[in-house]
Amino acid sequence: MSYTLLEQHFRELADLGHAQAMLSWDEAVMMPTGGGSARAQALATLAGVTHAKLTAPEVAELLAAAIADVDALSDWQRANLRLMQRRHQRAAMLPVDLVRAHREATARCEQAWRLARAANDFAAIAPSLEQVLKLTRERARCLADGCGTSPYDALLDEFQPGVSAADIEPVFAMLRTALPPLIERALARQVPARPLPSTVSVDAQRQLALSLMRVLGFDFEHGRLDVSHHPFSGGVPEDTRITTRYGADGVLDAQMATCHETGHALYQQGLPEAWRGQPVGDDAGMAVHESQSLLIEMQVCRSREFIAFAAPLFRDALAAGGDGSAFDAGNLLRCAHQVERGFIRVAADELTYPLHVVLRFELERALLADDLSVADLPAAWDAGMQRLLGLSTRGNDRDGCMQDVHWFAGLIGYFPSYTLGALMAAQLMARARQDVGDLMPRIGAGDLGRLRDWLRTHVHSMGARHGMHELLVAATGAPLDAAHFLRHVEERYLGNG
Amino acid sequence: MSYTLLEQHFRELADLGHAQAMLSWDEAVMMPTGGGSARAQALATLAGVTHAKLTAPEVAELLAAAIADVDALSDWQRANLRLMQRRHQRAAMLPVDLVRAHREATARCEQAWRLARAANDFAAIAPSLEQVLKLTRERARCLADGCGTSPYDALLDEFQPGVSAADIEPVFAMLRTALPPLIERALARQVPARPLPSTVSVDAQRQLALSLMRVLGFDFEHGRLDVSHHPFSGGVPEDTRITTRYGADGVLDAQMATCHETGHALYQQGLPEAWRGQPVGDDAGMAVHESQSLLIEMQVCRSREFIAFAAPLFRDALAAGGDGSAFDAGNLLRCAHQVERGFIRVAADELTYPLHVVLRFELERALLADDLSVADLPAAWDAGMQRLLGLSTRGNDRDGCMQDVHWFAGLIGYFPSYTLGALMAAQLMARARQDVGDLMPRIGAGDLGRLRDWLRTHVHSMGARHGMHELLVAATGAPLDAAHFLRHVEERYLGNG
Repeated sequence: MSYTLLEQHFRELADLGHAQAMLSWDEAVMMPTGGGSARAQALATLAGVTHAKLTAPEVAELLAAAIADVDALSDWQRANLRLMQRRHQRAAMLPVDLVRAHREATARCEQAWRLARAANDFAAIAPSLEQVLKLTRERARCLADGCGTSPYDALLDEFQPGVSAADIEPVFAMLRTALPPLIERALARQVPARPLPSTVSVDAQRQLALSLMRVLGFDFEHGRLDVSHHPFSGGVPEDTRITTRYGADGVLDAQMATCHETGHALYQQGLPEAWRGQPVGDDAGMAVHESQSLLIEMQVCRSREFIAFAAPLFRDALAAGGDGSAFDAGNLLRCAHQVERGFIRVAADELTYPLHVVLRFELERALLADDLSVADLPAAWDAGMQRLLGLSTRGNDRDGCMQDVHWFAGLIGYFPSYTLGALMAAQLMARARQDVGDLMPRIGAGDLGRLRDWLRTHVHSMGARHGMHELLVAATGAPLDAAHFLRHVEERYLGNG
Repeated sequence: MSYTLLEQHFRELADLGHAQAMLSWDEAVMMPTGGGSARAQALATLAGVTHAKLTAPEVAELLAAAIADVDALSDWQRANLRLMQRRHQRAAMLPVDLVRAHREATARCEQAWRLARAANDFAAIAPSLEQVLKLTRERARCLADGCGTSPYDALLDEFQPGVSAADIEPVFAMLRTALPPLIERALARQVPARPLPSTVSVDAQRQLALSLMRVLGFDFEHGRLDVSHHPFSGGVPEDTRITTRYGADGVLDAQMATCHETGHALYQQGLPEAWRGQPVGDDAGMAVHESQSLLIEMQVCRSREFIAFAAPLFRDALAAGGDGSAFDAGNLLRCAHQVERGFIRVAADELTYPLHVVLRFELERALLADDLSVADLPAAWDAGMQRLLGLSTRGNDRDGCMQDVHWFAGLIGYFPSYTLGALMAAQLMARARQDVGDLMPRIGAGDLGRLRDWLRTHVHSMGARHGMHELLVAATGAPLDAAHFLRHVEERYLGNG
């Protein structure tokens, strides 16, 4: 009975989450700029109301009663109860005024970042970022005190439960050593691609994106595709909103961004229906989420097989009336596998991408610890990029420390998820190829059904039933092992396949 | 101090209102159909949370304390306090379970109505409508008990405070007598218009709509235009969302629907900035709101002067490359002034429109009193249309009792606002023309600035400071007087100008 009441209570919390997810989507996709201040306030109030509901005294009482009667519950219910308790406890560590202030500051800073980035004006955004960092530090300190961890670990654990800096450091150290020579070798043997046309109508690009989403299995009855400043995936399982952008990084990257977000969407749409609105029905964390987007983008959509399937679709959609020869499968594959030391993380290839993440991992820890000031961030970024990728971003903060929305939106501790996700994606895909013998030929025929079934069974439908580590062991029989990723990139970029 | 705390409390209530307004807009404009069930639940939870916050015991205590210290307040603050009290008291008359159930049922019914209307299938929607009516009756009964009025008056008062059925009956009786002979005379002298092109691209129509909105003074920094099943105006003053539809009723009506919604938007965007988020900063009721939309659509945009100004814009936008002669000012004016006994309220001219409202006024009172069953509604509609406009809707419920969303969305008591608004619009415009001597020549030059200033001063910036009656007296020096409307339609449709 206590447990049933808790389910009802968390169902209402999920409804408040629905409202926040949709308002955030709207903010990034639809809202006119003048609506920003009212929206920031509305989001802060929703955060405050949610916090109050999550920390209400009756929740603590119901949790205690349900825990006392835990033997009456199924395994899923027990997992759900544990997650309810986790959410309640973590929320109770934070004062409601801080929750409100943090939400309002991050909404305002994110809005200001859009303008400042376009103007390449770091000085304009620095005070807002300062304020966000101050509140994020306070948040991290409260959570760290409550959890008995370091502040950075407390934030990591919000995005991917069960992961700490101690898990990440050796993996990142290994990648920092292993990747640079691979990048050198890949660049040395790389055959330049002919450039793809750059003046394709947005409508034609959108039609192609919708076609690829259909091939991948996006459920349009429960979701939609739009345009935003920065591609993202949002909404709720019943109504998944993904975005892309056309033009910023060329026609191929716009499609690959859509494929990436579709990977997130397939996960969200495939979460267990029986547990909608319950904590155990949510995703298993952001690293797992990124494993799903990167599996679809990197393992599937940039594969030789999928590119061969998709090349005629690209040509028909994007070369209408003109010369379509750049879209032959060979050239499109060269474009999709191009390695380049570039400024932009989201446009980076698989070999350089982890180095972008390493940079952010280092800098965000320093920012959080107040070892790096906001004023010194552009120079530290420049120095890091020179060290890791041999590029200078001096005077180009737009493509330097302002390129990503994360820190401006208060998301410190998120970046490692991308690289953990990339490693997991390679490991999951290796196992799926074992389990489904003809997986790659099927992908080459545009048939994603078996792969989707495999992902549904082993990942999507599990919700948050298991932590990241258990999920991976259950799905692949082994804990996280970077060897799969390294084997994958060697095959793809050095032709050792 | 109590008053200040109340302002803070109502500011948060407005934030929850912001969330609901945007989710409702999204539901009608953006949401994929599969998201409907989750959205209905989210809206119900928000309604429940809002209700709990509005009826919280501390609100009653703060109200009592603030009322005891009312002498310390300014006139605006006192008006605000009165409106806070009104909202609190009315909410306290309703059990929270009813509030939630009503919100969820109306959201679901509105979603189902879209499909049922498209399929002309009244039987499919009848059970949902039955459920909405049942809950609406319960709501009306609770409010009637609390307010000491009839149930229908209790609902009327929600949409337009201070208006009762006793106010409406004599006005509607007069219109029922006065309008039919005017319709006969107008039809007898009417010169048929050449039809406007019907195959204009949606994009061209949208560009024209945006141009006209700019002329009228819509602030795109704080709002946007989209497409929906049924044109409406929503959002918040800082971010006003209006919609139209293209194609359903021809190119002129799509533009006039946009002008109508722009009238609503100008009101919302012009509400007093100093009182944003406070009850006194809201609009003065739905009849006043409709007076603003109808003033812009009927008094301004369908005037000879505005049509002469707009005709070249229409021709340039909609006749690109083709024969633009149908868009000459004379023919466009004949189209804009065409009188026709038609099925569709929103496409009706000013002479027949009130009869559509009279029909709804009669039927919704019978539905609310349970004197008319849902099963008998189509036949009653048909009989009413035959009696009032000489048209049969038998077998055509799509254009009969299913044409409007209102009842399916639980909005009983709203329809009279349209006709009260039309009367008020004529009265306000007559006064504005007196006050601004060259108003019509200015409108003919596309200069709406002086009219907007007049409306800002006398209507928009007053918020909910005054009731409808006081507002009208303050703006025009006289109470509501239908003579202005009758003079206006005689001038326009019988050429007695």
